[in-house]
Amino acid sequence: MAVYTEVPDDELDSFAREYDIGRVVSCKGIAEGVENSNYLLQTDRGSYILTLYEKRVDPAELPFFLGLMEHLAARGLACPTPIPGRDGRALRSLCGRPAAIVSFLAGVWHARPRPEHCAALGEAMAEMHLKGADFGGRRPNSLSVAGWRPLFEAIRPRAGQIDPSLAPLVADELDLLEASWPSDLPVGLIHADLFPDNVFFLPTDAGGERVSGLIDFYFACTDILAYDLAICLNAWCFETDGAFNATKARLMLGAYRKRRPLSEPELAALPLLARGAALRFLLTRAYDWLNTPAGALVKRKDPLEYLRKLRFHQGLTGPGGYGIAP
Amino acid sequence: MAVYTEVPDDELDSFAREYDIGRVVSCKGIAEGVENSNYLLQTDRGSYILTLYEKRVDPAELPFFLGLMEHLAARGLACPTPIPGRDGRALRSLCGRPAAIVSFLAGVWHARPRPEHCAALGEAMAEMHLKGADFGGRRPNSLSVAGWRPLFEAIRPRAGQIDPSLAPLVADELDLLEASWPSDLPVGLIHADLFPDNVFFLPTDAGGERVSGLIDFYFACTDILAYDLAICLNAWCFETDGAFNATKARLMLGAYRKRRPLSEPELAALPLLARGAALRFLLTRAYDWLNTPAGALVKRKDPLEYLRKLRFHQGLTGPGGYGIAP
Repeated sequence: MAVYTEVPDDELDSFAREYDIGRVVSCKGIAEGVENSNYLLQTDRGSYILTLYEKRVDPAELPFFLGLMEHLAARGLACPTPIPGRDGRALRSLCGRPAAIVSFLAGVWHARPRPEHCAALGEAMAEMHLKGADFGGRRPNSLSVAGWRPLFEAIRPRAGQIDPSLAPLVADELDLLEASWPSDLPVGLIHADLFPDNVFFLPTDAGGERVSGLIDFYFACTDILAYDLAICLNAWCFETDGAFNATKARLMLGAYRKRRPLSEPELAALPLLARGAALRFLLTRAYDWLNTPAGALVKRKDPLEYLRKLRFHQGLTGPGGYGIAP
Repeated sequence: MAVYTEVPDDELDSFAREYDIGRVVSCKGIAEGVENSNYLLQTDRGSYILTLYEKRVDPAELPFFLGLMEHLAARGLACPTPIPGRDGRALRSLCGRPAAIVSFLAGVWHARPRPEHCAALGEAMAEMHLKGADFGGRRPNSLSVAGWRPLFEAIRPRAGQIDPSLAPLVADELDLLEASWPSDLPVGLIHADLFPDNVFFLPTDAGGERVSGLIDFYFACTDILAYDLAICLNAWCFETDGAFNATKARLMLGAYRKRRPLSEPELAALPLLARGAALRFLLTRAYDWLNTPAGALVKRKDPLEYLRKLRFHQGLTGPGGYGIAP
């Protein structure tokens, strides 16, 4: 949870006047997310999300993120769309920080997603990949294979503080992944951080649930499409006791493949991609663990959760471990 | 800022079903307040505030607080009103904690209130005092004069960590206040924590602003009515540079007196009450300062701000220092 910047009411007032969104009637800091300061802004016309971009986001990349959200929302994907000011610009400034207002999406995220949620996620992700295909922007994934070794070197001297097995395991895994990371799989626009808290659901009249929103595109990048699935195998398909739930994986992958078929090489690469995804979050969590000041207003996430996930994928002999027929 | 308890979606779902408030479409933790976990809950019928009472609130006192809010709201005061469940009970349980849903109030609070806000506050406070007069509940103020010495004894051994002058100054002040604290002033229902973040404003059509809500009644108690004003002299009438703004005080007190006249003894007691109010917040802030764990998710408030305010009131010779004619 984090709201790093308190917005004084007078600054909010003049900021809101730059938009045609009506009169502000309420503005509450949201205790979610760790990267930026988010506010739920209510006006007499509706609800919006106001985001102040804090130092972990490179301002030069904001036009990419905002442009992508605008692109996807315009194509009917349920995602926030940036609201331009009266002068047409969506990326503005508030309290000395880059800031933007995006549309508010109703929905609730599931901390413990059930199998049907994984299926709905798979379908929504495929839709996002398809709708992102003609987006003009490109952004390399700084947290893919090329970025892992520098991260590892940064944490290596103190990795033992987390777990003695961490450094040797990561060293071996990095060697293997760098040597075998695929370079010929379909590439496109991926979200790259589609954890449960970034996927909203609403009930349907039929008694089920539908995805009502994908949010937080601030890790989105151009990378292997199936890598987005690999991230979600880690983020959605393990139970809290560490057990892998193959039913969830099967439903997620199955629903995805109905909208965007996966090629044989993509399927075959899934275990390797999932190892890479596990390593990526293991490394960033370990980095944050070692570098979060004791008094910080964010909760540190356990890096070892991803060490255990990595070990699971290491033990697989093929994508059959994810519950799918090749 | 604080949300101590994360509410799992399935628990929220069954909790919300105990109410006739419609279907939950969104629930966001609010990064405000330090005592409880608050969520802005949106349903297809409207907005509500869901509060989980954390350990700093005595569950036995919750019926008083909720009953008071219901009483005041029923009399037309702009304050949250508890929403009863289908069985008529407003105080319920969620995630193993006492919990309640109250009505949502639109409005924005002012971190730097202007003189006109102080006037509006004075009027709203008088209205609250008048409407609270026939409330049946009673609750002694555990943070009034009798509670200060135990607090002081708790911080005394480490008070020097905050400021070397703190302990001797507080010791003298306590002696004086205990000896001279008034016992014959009008008593009633007071808010006792009416800081700017607990007072919401909305623009009026005439171009001004009106108080749209008083919130957070979890320090409310039965005490000297003018002590509520003394708290607000401290909380609303000092500038960020520490200077006392007599115009703000004059407007606040003047607007209050129009709705509820202040007697001669009440006016005369204001400097003493303001010293007591300053000491009360100095002591609790000092206590929190010394006892907040380094990793806590709350920002510590500076106790010395209230040491400086105390010194200001000590220098006054009468209520004329607050800009009012006796």
